[in-house]
Amino acid sequence: MRLGIDIGGTKTAAVVIGAHGDLSEQVRMPTGFGAEEVIETAVRTVARMAEIAGAGTSVFSSIGIGIPGAVDSESGRVAHAVNLGLEGLDLGPRLADRLGVHVRIENDVKAATLGAHHLLGATHSMAYLNLGTGLAAGIVLDGRLLRGGRGVAGEIGHIPVDPAGEKCGCGQRGCLETLASGSAIARMWPTSAALPARDLFDAAEAGDARAIDVRDRFLTGVAAAARLLALTTDVDSIVIGGGLAALAESLLEGTHRILNGWAAESAFLASLDLAARVQVLPLGFPAAAVGAALVGADQWQKS
Amino acid sequence: MRLGIDIGGTKTAAVVIGAHGDLSEQVRMPTGFGAEEVIETAVRTVARMAEIAGAGTSVFSSIGIGIPGAVDSESGRVAHAVNLGLEGLDLGPRLADRLGVHVRIENDVKAATLGAHHLLGATHSMAYLNLGTGLAAGIVLDGRLLRGGRGVAGEIGHIPVDPAGEKCGCGQRGCLETLASGSAIARMWPTSAALPARDLFDAAEAGDARAIDVRDRFLTGVAAAARLLALTTDVDSIVIGGGLAALAESLLEGTHRILNGWAAESAFLASLDLAARVQVLPLGFPAAAVGAALVGADQWQKS
Repeated sequence: MRLGIDIGGTKTAAVVIGAHGDLSEQVRMPTGFGAEEVIETAVRTVARMAEIAGAGTSVFSSIGIGIPGAVDSESGRVAHAVNLGLEGLDLGPRLADRLGVHVRIENDVKAATLGAHHLLGATHSMAYLNLGTGLAAGIVLDGRLLRGGRGVAGEIGHIPVDPAGEKCGCGQRGCLETLASGSAIARMWPTSAALPARDLFDAAEAGDARAIDVRDRFLTGVAAAARLLALTTDVDSIVIGGGLAALAESLLEGTHRILNGWAAESAFLASLDLAARVQVLPLGFPAAAVGAALVGADQWQKS
Repeated sequence: MRLGIDIGGTKTAAVVIGAHGDLSEQVRMPTGFGAEEVIETAVRTVARMAEIAGAGTSVFSSIGIGIPGAVDSESGRVAHAVNLGLEGLDLGPRLADRLGVHVRIENDVKAATLGAHHLLGATHSMAYLNLGTGLAAGIVLDGRLLRGGRGVAGEIGHIPVDPAGEKCGCGQRGCLETLASGSAIARMWPTSAALPARDLFDAAEAGDARAIDVRDRFLTGVAAAARLLALTTDVDSIVIGGGLAALAESLLEGTHRILNGWAAESAFLASLDLAARVQVLPLGFPAAAVGAALVGADQWQKS
């Protein structure tokens, strides 16, 4: 049995993949803040999953963890996970010491990429476009995750697409992330609503002109990210995940509308059939935790 | 002996790779216009290379051809090679019939990518950024050419980077190709000089303010293409080739200047060390013909 744990900014999710590829129910618990609390969260999650399996920790042939931030999957170190209060933590070695089991660590977007690829049965090439607070992508080619020489493959959120765009936290201007991300929506559509993106889309659907304008700027950024991934890596499918994937049908329809509008003005783009290649990860799909479990297994380690 | 032929808009170049990887001198001849003339050019080139080798056509264990346009490397068909007067031509099968040897066909930028990768001894990952009349890239990951599901991997010339930019031939606006290509220079710096790009760079170096502005817009596009390739595929090196690579040191220094200027304003970009990863293909490097020879060999056919 392979255990996968997705440590998010507020919640930690876990899932077990059985010997025949069967998935357990997804278990969720709150994530602690800071290095020691993150470790305790992981240890508690492992104990809980072992309890559910009615066995000890050794029942897991592998444990994999997806976590935000800069992850060195070789050493198991995670750095710059701001939302978790982690400046730097040797999470893999620390957990292995506590649990007596080897623990693999992967960046959460890369883990979710592997999970989406597995869950969707995408056999060849796929990009996973994560729309969360920020924007980043994971790329699977020939069934393998592309890491790149410095681990920045898929960091398309910081590709500028408008010299007159907003200043980005990375020091550049007009990055894709300034258009198509939760932080972009927070900037363009300030609200006290619990779900700002949902609030924006609802207002747009109700006919609010400014909401329509903001929503379409956001969707144009999403469509631009899809176009960029297609024209660089030519992946067969582009799967949108992350927190904003909860927008579900409205996100998919809106992105398709923008892409089809572009295709109507460019025979070249029309030939790429972009709209047909873009999909949104179904709600509740435990892509990140499943991907973390796959990260824990040796066959996914080559890159 | 493996024969590689690069059929360009005006010139055709050929080179032979010997059994021990040794390269022959590069032979050049003019390219004919239209389907029948392109075939005759290829046949003449093969005959000339066999003559130099002092043997018959059968001395070549493989023949590969790089040619502009949309190439189906499985069927050997080339389409939309406008500069050659080819709407559609079964170049591979037609040549095989004439020569009695199997002939592989590849898009010229993809062939040059393989050639540059081979000549530069780049063992891992590399992008080849072709600056010719247009702009396109070839991408090598884990030593293999990325083709993509629809053969458009690396078609980054048609990624828009400025909503207020110039209209592009593809129907979009502000594509990278409208900044960083021979056609972009022709539009921004009209001249009757034989080498417009050289004329532009010379005028800029002589202090002409408008030339400096145009040159820097061009260089900004080149640097943007390098940044985009790095943030998407995270290749170890980005090699600039194509006709504009004749600008040599001035192109390299100018691109480095732009990238270093960006790095000074973004710690994120600085951490990517982009300038150190960009190089220009040395003048006279027969990348396209060598790559065509490699295309002809079976070990390069998997993708």
